[in-house]
Amino acid sequence: VDSSPELEPLARTNPRVERTRANVLAVARELLLERGPIDLTFSVLSQRSGVTRQTLYRHWATRAALLADLVLAGPDVGYPEPGSNPRAVIVEFLTSLRAGMNDPPTAAAVLAIAAQAARDPDSAAALKSIIDDRRNALNHLLAQTGYQVGEDEFAGLCGPIMYRQLLAHGTATDELIQRTVDAWLA
Amino acid sequence: VDSSPELEPLARTNPRVERTRANVLAVARELLLERGPIDLTFSVLSQRSGVTRQTLYRHWATRAALLADLVLAGPDVGYPEPGSNPRAVIVEFLTSLRAGMNDPPTAAAVLAIAAQAARDPDSAAALKSIIDDRRNALNHLLAQTGYQVGEDEFAGLCGPIMYRQLLAHGTATDELIQRTVDAWLA
Repeated sequence: VDSSPELEPLARTNPRVERTRANVLAVARELLLERGPIDLTFSVLSQRSGVTRQTLYRHWATRAALLADLVLAGPDVGYPEPGSNPRAVIVEFLTSLRAGMNDPPTAAAVLAIAAQAARDPDSAAALKSIIDDRRNALNHLLAQTGYQVGEDEFAGLCGPIMYRQLLAHGTATDELIQRTVDAWLA
Repeated sequence: VDSSPELEPLARTNPRVERTRANVLAVARELLLERGPIDLTFSVLSQRSGVTRQTLYRHWATRAALLADLVLAGPDVGYPEPGSNPRAVIVEFLTSLRAGMNDPPTAAAVLAIAAQAARDPDSAAALKSIIDDRRNALNHLLAQTGYQVGEDEFAGLCGPIMYRQLLAHGTATDELIQRTVDAWLA
């Protein structure tokens, strides 16, 4: 099992720690594209990044935590501003979600975590942390509207886009995003 | 590559062929639960089922085709009847979809095909065949209502359920199903 609970986790505020993290995530993104998620092990990552396995474990206690960090760090696709119109804010949020899922390493990491979640509690926890993080982010953007999105609405809003991008291997069109938001805000 | 195009595909109408297919799919379901999708290779399947690899290839030209067949054969979860009320028909369809996705080997197979689709055209084609099959099935159930579901509506209806069951590793509640149908039929 990829887990070394005796190691102290590293403080993210240290610039050297942050640089190592960014370098390893960049290598992990390359490996996901080249070889797929199966071969993204801490051994291979250590070889390719030149960072020891022990240091990798101090950054990420598990492989699932690394994949989740890769998803949340995401590609640089721009991010919506808070706003006063719920429809506009949610459309922008879902457009940014789509851009993230259009990034092949991010999509591969989400599917890999989801596939492992049935058999691996670390992956199930990582999945939950990603979803909670994203729903909180949307509700933060919506704060000034007074409108907040519950778990079912979040599934209703993100589901069609995630389904189209990840499970149906297609592209969520602007029209699908707009129709989804209109359906749920009605 | 798991592909032997020179072999004739087998006729599904032959009872012996059908029996072999059912046996192999049952073994594949066990393997998906025990070991996960990575180890579901034609070699391991051949060893475990006692069916030669050549015969396996005559049933399924590719591993993706086998996984898609496993998804479409599905668990025995009941299936809706056609009806005259679109809302009732779609709620029953999504309830049956949820029951299918609650079946761990089916869920694992869908995620495995989706994860491979980005890198493997056979998996992308298998995914498309599953989705087209399911949308046609829903539209068949809806035939007498005069209402038909397009690609975006299908994503809007199935997306939240597939997202919750497969990507968020949870259970789509009856309420989520009903709210999704109400949102899209409004």
